[in-house]
Order: sequence, then C-alpha cells, then structure tokens
Amino acid sequence: MNDLSRLAVHTITTKPWPLATALRKYADAGAKGISVWKESLGDIKPAAAASLIRAAGLKTVSMVRGGFFPAPMAGERNKKIVDNLALIEASAELGAPLLVLVCGADPRVRLAEARKQVEEGIAAMLPAARRAGVRLAIEPLHPMYADARSVVNTMRQANDLCESFADPFLGVAVDVYHVWWDPELEAQIGRCGSLGKIFAFHVCDWLTPTVDFLNDRGLMGEGCIDIPLIRSWVEKAGFSGFSEVEIFSERLWALDQDAFLARIVEAFKEFV
Amino acid sequence: MNDLSRLAVHTITTKPWPLATALRKYADAGAKGISVWKESLGDIKPAAAASLIRAAGLKTVSMVRGGFFPAPMAGERNKKIVDNLALIEASAELGAPLLVLVCGADPRVRLAEARKQVEEGIAAMLPAARRAGVRLAIEPLHPMYADARSVVNTMRQANDLCESFADPFLGVAVDVYHVWWDPELEAQIGRCGSLGKIFAFHVCDWLTPTVDFLNDRGLMGEGCIDIPLIRSWVEKAGFSGFSEVEIFSERLWALDQDAFLARIVEAFKEFV
Repeated sequence: MNDLSRLAVHTITTKPWPLATALRKYADAGAKGISVWKESLGDIKPAAAASLIRAAGLKTVSMVRGGFFPAPMAGERNKKIVDNLALIEASAELGAPLLVLVCGADPRVRLAEARKQVEEGIAAMLPAARRAGVRLAIEPLHPMYADARSVVNTMRQANDLCESFADPFLGVAVDVYHVWWDPELEAQIGRCGSLGKIFAFHVCDWLTPTVDFLNDRGLMGEGCIDIPLIRSWVEKAGFSGFSEVEIFSERLWALDQDAFLARIVEAFKEFV
Repeated sequence: MNDLSRLAVHTITTKPWPLATALRKYADAGAKGISVWKESLGDIKPAAAASLIRAAGLKTVSMVRGGFFPAPMAGERNKKIVDNLALIEASAELGAPLLVLVCGADPRVRLAEARKQVEEGIAAMLPAARRAGVRLAIEPLHPMYADARSVVNTMRQANDLCESFADPFLGVAVDVYHVWWDPELEAQIGRCGSLGKIFAFHVCDWLTPTVDFLNDRGLMGEGCIDIPLIRSWVEKAGFSGFSEVEIFSERLWALDQDAFLARIVEAFKEFV
C-alpha cells in the first residue's frame, strides 16, 4: 500500500478538465506533483500556471512534451528545433525542471536516418537546456510507435544515447506502458540507474485486448503490467522521484472525472 | 527486381480461398513455395494435402503454427503440449520440414513465468521434432503481442533461446513485421546466421496508421519497412531460402483474390 507522497498526475490523464480545475482537484485528492501537457496550458501563460501550481501546493514534475524531430526536409526539421527551443523557455517559466521528449518518427524517413535526425535534434537542444536549467528526458516509446511517433523504442537505445552524449542535462523517462514487455528491462533499468539517468517514472496499464493504438491505456491494476516489480527495479537503481500517472483513454475520459480521479488514487495505493 | 524462384505464400494470405484453390493459384502465378496454415487444411488430411502440393509443383516450406505454451494451470499447459506433438506429426505427414512456433502469452501469467513456460514447452517438443525430422522455428512476435500472443518479442531473445537449447532442430523465423523496428536488428540477424539458426524469412509491410492490432498488415511496398535492407541482412547472414509472403488483412481479404495475388507477385518483384 503506497502513500500518496510520490503521486503525480499528468494533465492529459484528466483531459476534460482545464488546467486550473485539474491542479486544484489533484491537490485536493492528495497528489503532490503535476506534469503539465503543453496543450493543457491553453491561454494561460507558463509563469501564471506556475503560480497556480505553487498556490495549490503541488510540485511541477515535468513539461510534456517536446521532440518529434524526424522529417523528410531540413526546413521542417529546423522548424521543429525552433519550436523545441521555445518549449525549453516555456518549461523554465513553468518552473518545470524537466522536459519530456517523444523523439518522433516519420514513415517517409528510413529508420536509420530518423534515428540520426533524433540525435541531431537532441544535440541542437542541449545547449539551450543547460542555459535554462531544464533537463531533457528521452522517453523510449513502445515499438508499435516506431513508424510515426518515436524511433527510440527501448531502454537500451535510450541508455546508449545518454552514454554517447554524456550530458548531465540528458536522461530517460521510464514509462511502464512502453517498456514492460522488454526481456532486458531489469538490466537496462539497472544500467540507466548506474548512469544516473532515470529522470522520471510513468505508470498506467496495458489492456487485453487493446483496441486503439493510442488512446486505450488502462488504469493501474486493469491490465497485465507488473508495476510494483518495475517500480522496485527503478527504486533499486536509485530513483526516488514521483510515480506519474499518465493515461490516455477515451473510455476513462468519458467517465465523470471526479470519480475517475478517486479511482486513480485507489489504484495508485494498491497497484503501483 | 526479384525473380519468383524464392517466392512462397502463406495460405492465410489468401484466406478466402480453400487450400486446393490456393495452391493451384500460387503455382499458376509463379510462386515456388507454400506455407500451410493448419486451419486451411480443413477436412483435408495432411498426406492428401502433400500430394496436392507436389502435383502443383510447389515446395512445402512450413506448417503454421504451433506453440501458444503459457497458461495459468498445468493441466491446460499439458493439453497444449499434446496438441503440439500432434502438430509435429501432421507437419511430417504434410512433408513440411519446418513448424513455426508462436510461443504464446497469457495476460494472467506474469512475463517471467510465461517465458519459463515457453522454454518448458519447447523442451517438451524437441524430442518429438527430432524423431519426426521436423525443425521448429521460434518466431519472435512484435512487442505489441506480449500480453496475449507471444512473450518472445525480439531476435535477441530468440537467439538466446537457440543458444541455450543448442539443438539443431530449433531455430528462428524472421518476420519483418515483428522485428523491423529493432535497433539491434542487423546485429541480431548476423548473430542468428552465425548460429546457423535462420530457418525462415517472412515478409509483409507496416501501415501508417495501423488500425487493427492483428489484421491490418500491408502488402510489401504499402508501408514503411525497408524489406530489401532486411533481406540483405538475412542473406549476408547465410540464409538462402524462400521469402514467404504472410499478410493478415481484412482489407486485402475483401479484394478479389486473383487480383490480390497478381499484386503480391508485382510487390514481391519490386519491394522484397
């Protein structure tokens, strides 16, 4: 049974709620942290959102999400870099110590080339990240997203990137949904910890059957992921930060969000 | 531009056709090999199917598919072994030198336990496989199937299993659909070849977007997989067998199957 001292919630999880509602509800429910999806800012300036979050007594865990580097044309890739640099600034204004990167993929760009473009994108962001004091977390995405969402698909690959950059501002966001299946998971989480690179830990569950590639994630305990086992691995590897609840689900967004948040809290206590 | 000397087709690819129709059409189209899905046998005895295939001038590449080992209860697992042993006999009667294994998964069985059950299942099959002269091919399945279809999800894992068993009757079926995303693919295909374990090579394509987890595969050239690159790796690793077209697609099954087969032949020449 977990207490709530390390519960953080991603604003996308309760997508129907505006940010101001979400942060108040999270705090009332006992959560201590929030990760802010940039889309949830709406018209609110990041600095104003930071004040609201502070006033609610929450800690900002991360800004979600930058990246999406690969594209067929250099002009398009450069535009993405510009957007990412602006997002680093917004993260700093939000008081987010971390910006999560979904590295991107494009079915028109061959894998090897797309992976090179991801490295170039990260390299272009790191100087600005250092200046702003905002760390970057590569989130390896499930291999089912290798065509159009991310060509970084395993912990091994994220670790290799971190080793190659050897930059204190670059690390990894471990999301159980993306990595639970990996036969090397325990070893690669251990390696990530040894490198000092576990920057974030995200939880949800994998449903059987999953009926939509993007928006059919489960609440913790609804699926087959052994979350406590994976959490034990990240903790053994030295991670002591938040467990962030990040769920995309048409089914769960259709519920009364107060009732859903109450279920999140119970599921966090029992299944994380 | 490939000639058709190494074109084989899986009967599931043209699911609407009964086996007797399929094998005649494949031969007429210039294919040289056939892989027989056990479901496509229907009421035809394997030995009778073997005669039909021989008469059409085709080579039987494999029987598809055994495995599906994990289950919560020992009684259920034992029943699966019995079914698999019968399938080895049927493969021998069919004249299939190879039986493809989809190793199985069950969301009620934890990953580590399910992987142990797969090893136990393979161990239980190998003596019968040796006696029957039927080789077994572990087909690593895409990680999106780790919950309910296969807990063997990478080439590295399949290679590790082969190394651990060190049995000449156990090898690997490389299917581009399942492994194309893997950052280690080239290295692990090379390793598989060094072990002498590349027993089969399956082709189709990955569509963007993919709208169904099971039955939305693409015809070669419709998606983002660099099939010629992967084929070059398996050939460099010493494989010189068939490229087997294995496509599950509600969309393509709904087409006139003669027209679809003509497209398969063209796609094989151009995109494999």
